[in-house]
Amino acid sequence: MSDKAMSDKAMSDKAMSDKEMNALRAGRANGAGGGLRPIMLAIAGDSGTGKTTITAGLAEALGPERITSVGADDYHRYDREERKSLPFTPLNPECNYIDIMEQHLQNLALGKPILKPVYDHDTGKLGRPEYIEPREFVIVEGLLPLHTELARACFDVSVFLDPPEEIRIAWKLARDTKKRGYTEDEVRQDLKKREPESERFIRPQRAYADIVVRFAPIEERGQTADDPLSATLLLRPTIDHPELHTILGDDTNQAMHLKLIRDDDGKPVDAVHIHSHADPEVTSKVETAIWDELGVDSPLPESLGRLDSDSDTRDEPLALTQLLLLYHLIQARERLSGASSDSDG
Amino acid sequence: MSDKAMSDKAMSDKAMSDKEMNALRAGRANGAGGGLRPIMLAIAGDSGTGKTTITAGLAEALGPERITSVGADDYHRYDREERKSLPFTPLNPECNYIDIMEQHLQNLALGKPILKPVYDHDTGKLGRPEYIEPREFVIVEGLLPLHTELARACFDVSVFLDPPEEIRIAWKLARDTKKRGYTEDEVRQDLKKREPESERFIRPQRAYADIVVRFAPIEERGQTADDPLSATLLLRPTIDHPELHTILGDDTNQAMHLKLIRDDDGKPVDAVHIHSHADPEVTSKVETAIWDELGVDSPLPESLGRLDSDSDTRDEPLALTQLLLLYHLIQARERLSGASSDSDG
Repeated sequence: MSDKAMSDKAMSDKAMSDKEMNALRAGRANGAGGGLRPIMLAIAGDSGTGKTTITAGLAEALGPERITSVGADDYHRYDREERKSLPFTPLNPECNYIDIMEQHLQNLALGKPILKPVYDHDTGKLGRPEYIEPREFVIVEGLLPLHTELARACFDVSVFLDPPEEIRIAWKLARDTKKRGYTEDEVRQDLKKREPESERFIRPQRAYADIVVRFAPIEERGQTADDPLSATLLLRPTIDHPELHTILGDDTNQAMHLKLIRDDDGKPVDAVHIHSHADPEVTSKVETAIWDELGVDSPLPESLGRLDSDSDTRDEPLALTQLLLLYHLIQARERLSGASSDSDG
Repeated sequence: MSDKAMSDKAMSDKAMSDKEMNALRAGRANGAGGGLRPIMLAIAGDSGTGKTTITAGLAEALGPERITSVGADDYHRYDREERKSLPFTPLNPECNYIDIMEQHLQNLALGKPILKPVYDHDTGKLGRPEYIEPREFVIVEGLLPLHTELARACFDVSVFLDPPEEIRIAWKLARDTKKRGYTEDEVRQDLKKREPESERFIRPQRAYADIVVRFAPIEERGQTADDPLSATLLLRPTIDHPELHTILGDDTNQAMHLKLIRDDDGKPVDAVHIHSHADPEVTSKVETAIWDELGVDSPLPESLGRLDSDSDTRDEPLALTQLLLLYHLIQARERLSGASSDSDG
């Protein structure tokens, strides 16, 4: 077989797998164990974009016992020591077992267990792997969960976190100096080293997300990273969003509004804006309307919008972002339930 | 869905997987990467049955660069420390991630990489997993590689090592006191503790092997474990063995002979016997005939039959056992080659 034929064959094998995965997920409400297959959510974004904060609120709202949380960064191929002599950062797919991550995402999506590798962010070492059986909801957060077509085929809902660089740098500086023991200089040098790979591998995932979340200060009002942030959520018509156009107007003077815009690539998206100082009475009405659209019995969770676990202050843009993700998780689950009882009857 | 229906469904999912696996292997000469899929050999047997000795000779004969060797014992669920407070030994499937082993065997059989867990027999600890891409031949040796139907469906050839208990105890005592730092007392206590699970989980695998290998002294001649051992190979008609009936007679006075017998379960098997003192001229003729039947260009490997890597003495029963496995590995590979070029043309 020629090189070309070999490569075509490998590609068609690969393409088959993506299609197979989509077909399997679409055609099957039940997972390997006979129960409903899990709902899979990807939260992709660069280091310091707030992946953990978003995930924590979802886990609390759904109940941690219903959630399996997987860090895509556990698939690092090299430990911190080994990386010192290597020409790439953890942002590079070469620095990760992407093929193994794909296998594990496929297994989880079909309700099968995995033996997940473990990367310790504190020590920078790779350790004993961990046996994981997927629960009702699987949240996969990390640098590259949406990097390949096959990985993307495993998710029901995908999110890309896309804050402006100055916000991300401020967040990353705060975390890495306080929680991971780096100096400010080290963090800044690391950011500089990572930038080319961030551009090449992380940011392209934005194009594949169902929802793009951007927390940002409003520059026209002279706000900075220290002010409470507003949020803009881009909702791509790749999944069924709540019917926000019946709830929100497009008057940009309103603290919450919805605008039909073209994204950077020219494709249509709905852009929801939630102002940092939005009146809780206004946001609460919108939240209730979104929640009611789900038609579930349980009340709207009160734990949304917490910036950290100790704090009692509620951040409205964060709360609405988490609620929207919650909506999609519960909606996807309800649909599976329906499909499963249909096929039973 | 009732419990019964749920359980039926889970079982049918499971049964499907075995069939699917067999169908996939049978219908496909090529693996995930487009090249030929690997040939899979299982070597199952209790602790101290000589799995490593058999495997080492095969690896040397084929060339280590063509072989991927996988230890089924790497799938231990608990480390040595954790097992101290648990009511079972490593022989118990509960003490192993059998489902993960199945997944990995499926992947390897289809030419896909795995991230294999690592159990260190010296320290008794579980460590950083290892990325493995299957080469031409994958040899999986360990306690439980043939425990489940799905695992068995992944192999082209399967072997069970079945020495009499006194031989196994002598071998295990020698190894565990010399190489693993145990006292004789500890090994004997451990053997006693393991016996019920050995009977329940290890020995039943014998029934599923294509080849059962028994190295033993000839009791009628008053031989003991210290004498060179003879070998009896049971060849089940589950795979195509070389046509030994055209080479060997059934005269049990001959140093090598072939007898059609009923196995313990009443089913027909061919039993090849190689006497420990068989004349190398006789065995050499048989070996050449087996090798010629393969019709390959390369000469009969000279490295077979070494009891340990330092020794130059050749053990004829071991050499013939290894040759027979080699025959099956090469034959299976040749068949895939043929199937692949057929489908290419």
